[in-house]
Amino acid sequence: MEEEPSRLLGFWLQMGVQLDQAKEILRRTPGILNSLLRDLPEAWTESNEGPETWSPFDVVGHLNHAEETDWIPRARIILEQGESGTFEPFDRFAMFDKFKGKTLRELLAEFESLRSKSLTTLESLNLDVALLARRARHPEFGVVTLSQLLSTWVVHDLGHVGQIVRVMAKQYGAAVGPWKAYLPVLSR
Amino acid sequence: MEEEPSRLLGFWLQMGVQLDQAKEILRRTPGILNSLLRDLPEAWTESNEGPETWSPFDVVGHLNHAEETDWIPRARIILEQGESGTFEPFDRFAMFDKFKGKTLRELLAEFESLRSKSLTTLESLNLDVALLARRARHPEFGVVTLSQLLSTWVVHDLGHVGQIVRVMAKQYGAAVGPWKAYLPVLSR
Repeated sequence: MEEEPSRLLGFWLQMGVQLDQAKEILRRTPGILNSLLRDLPEAWTESNEGPETWSPFDVVGHLNHAEETDWIPRARIILEQGESGTFEPFDRFAMFDKFKGKTLRELLAEFESLRSKSLTTLESLNLDVALLARRARHPEFGVVTLSQLLSTWVVHDLGHVGQIVRVMAKQYGAAVGPWKAYLPVLSR
Repeated sequence: MEEEPSRLLGFWLQMGVQLDQAKEILRRTPGILNSLLRDLPEAWTESNEGPETWSPFDVVGHLNHAEETDWIPRARIILEQGESGTFEPFDRFAMFDKFKGKTLRELLAEFESLRSKSLTTLESLNLDVALLARRARHPEFGVVTLSQLLSTWVVHDLGHVGQIVRVMAKQYGAAVGPWKAYLPVLSR
């Protein structure tokens, strides 16, 4: 049992480091999306992987919707309501109606502004290791922590950037000819 | 047979459009890599997916090596030697020795400069539909066209951007807790 305090200390320290690391990514995502998509022809941004799949435009819409209804709202539920708080289910398809008629350029600019506000709010929460360990109830998973929510936010960003480049790559699935065998991104 | 000319015309037009579209991506990749990785802590850029896998640093090294030895050199072989030309096999692991001791910042700056040179060269080749249909021999696949090579260049860029974000996402594979179930990027 003698190890216990130092293991715990290591755990808390790691949490602190992880929060800084997480912010490093979260603040980059608008720039990453802009460098990938801004002013790109619609042949790249409006094409998807087939029926029931998302185009890069749809993905950016989804990220915008998550920014408004998921991450910070859920962080607040954890901090304000604790385990008696339950998240609203997140609508993963809301963007199809919500952003109809917008341009990608508008969506990218909105995302940049929404993300900037989210990061300001995150900063204002003055999270420490004790707060990061706070819990609430996920409608499906049961008890989850604030630390898990923030980590999920980062992975969600990165995963959707990965989805955007995969969707774009697939537009050239036939054009690469036999090289397809060396390009695993085309078979995902 | 009456359709033949217009189908061919459509094919050639598509080739032309595709070259412009391809350049749209190729010229973005240095900026995408910079927005993803420049000045990011090494915890993100030096971590990989486990033994025998690549870190973001390794991926950028691989892209640099391809820029020097693969795309433009192979395009030249196609244009200058035609079907009697055979590509040198591309060393997919050269970067492990070649870039040892470099910083990621150096590699990113070199990639930017190499890519810019590649695009200038590509422009100077004045490719038209006839040239894009030119062929050479791939050591493994047999006959391939210049159009397929250039399409592969684009997909190779996008695929490796996807790899970088996947490798980064996996650093949080445990931290997300039960949300892993909703994050397919962690299981690829």
